[in-house]
Amino acid sequence: MIQPDATHFSRESTSELSVALNKPESFKLMYWPINAVGAISREILAYGQAKWENLAPGNWQEEKLKTPFQVVPILYIKSQNGQDLVLSESSVIEQYLAKTFGLLGDNDYEEYLIKAFHSSSAAIQSHFAQGVTWEGIEVAKAKHFEFFKSHTLKIWVETHEKHLSDNGNNGHYVGNKLSLADIRTACAIEHFALLPEAPELMEIINKSEALLKVRETVAKDPKIAAWRDSELYKKLSHGSVAFFANPFAFIKAPSN
Amino acid sequence: MIQPDATHFSRESTSELSVALNKPESFKLMYWPINAVGAISREILAYGQAKWENLAPGNWQEEKLKTPFQVVPILYIKSQNGQDLVLSESSVIEQYLAKTFGLLGDNDYEEYLIKAFHSSSAAIQSHFAQGVTWEGIEVAKAKHFEFFKSHTLKIWVETHEKHLSDNGNNGHYVGNKLSLADIRTACAIEHFALLPEAPELMEIINKSEALLKVRETVAKDPKIAAWRDSELYKKLSHGSVAFFANPFAFIKAPSN
Repeated sequence: MIQPDATHFSRESTSELSVALNKPESFKLMYWPINAVGAISREILAYGQAKWENLAPGNWQEEKLKTPFQVVPILYIKSQNGQDLVLSESSVIEQYLAKTFGLLGDNDYEEYLIKAFHSSSAAIQSHFAQGVTWEGIEVAKAKHFEFFKSHTLKIWVETHEKHLSDNGNNGHYVGNKLSLADIRTACAIEHFALLPEAPELMEIINKSEALLKVRETVAKDPKIAAWRDSELYKKLSHGSVAFFANPFAFIKAPSN
Repeated sequence: MIQPDATHFSRESTSELSVALNKPESFKLMYWPINAVGAISREILAYGQAKWENLAPGNWQEEKLKTPFQVVPILYIKSQNGQDLVLSESSVIEQYLAKTFGLLGDNDYEEYLIKAFHSSSAAIQSHFAQGVTWEGIEVAKAKHFEFFKSHTLKIWVETHEKHLSDNGNNGHYVGNKLSLADIRTACAIEHFALLPEAPELMEIINKSEALLKVRETVAKDPKIAAWRDSELYKKLSHGSVAFFANPFAFIKAPSN
């Protein structure tokens, strides 16, 4: 892969860069060749029928030095006037793409609600990743998994059911249309469904009709359905299954 | 404490609620009686010279059922036209308060940059909380702490030094004025400085002149300095020291 150099954020004339940011021409999303946290941005790009390219790190030990925070995902943006911009941090990238493609509701209040659900569903996935997936000590992993099921996931399901019910259990968190919140929650569920721990996780999630309705509603969106039917998406999903079967085998990181 | 009922988000007329949200009259922030994640919102409220009240849970087992996600912080807002609103999720609350009090830069691009630094510094604090503070198994806690120091914190320091240098090491992340990014990073450092693990953490952080300059610049802001000099802030800081000396003693949660 030819990786754009994004060691530094552009700093020249931020007002011009703002104009460029709001008039994107095409995108490149760099993330590992799996779904996980990359899935949300990819689905938004697919939903927005954006011109975009999927990138994956090659030699990460070298390439990470050309990124803002040594983490992926990273979004490279080419603006209509030819400027190159980069965004980092998944929540920031997802909020930017959601704003660009009309997935943050109809007004400021809806936007804050959507961001709250988005944050809560990102947190559930991140808690599992840190506490279970990347826990290298078996006794701790087992204990965290039990706590996750009996406490963290339970509260997530209960509170999200309440808010989905408040919106009439129509498959959306806010109003009657697709938003970043719906996509974030659906991606969390699709993520859990591909993990080795899926049987136990999905047994809990599958009891929630409200959450299943969100999962189903996102899956039925024609543009997202087309993306999920693509060869690339299938390859990334297979990648997820293989990766999470033994994540430590794929990354030369300490087993934390 | 008389806790406002925020079981449900208001859903009636989101366009009216947007108007209300953008014209706040006063605030109540509910969080544990410590600094930790509550510190950021409190400093923004102090910086904005807002009319606000600090709340702490009383009987949390009951009160949590009157919150959106059974987590704190929660921000209760009274609008100028008398409407009650609630926001949940720390990142959402902090972004809202930062927007309200002019701490998100001068344009959209600066706002995304500031949010990226904000996200990265929230993540460093959250990684430590989940992996070390709330790790009940000693062998795992020790291993996570070593990994945190040698890897997670190291990368955070290196990458933030780079971005601070790009901005001229003037104590700010973006431009020449205080932003949410500066406050978020300063609060992370103040948080680490009060933990039992402070000697080892601060030995690493104190080597970074760029980060210390941010810490110092935030501390010198006259309104933030006045807040940190208040009896309430001192009480919350003492609360932090007592709490983190043995967090499991204070919360009836499984030792995850």
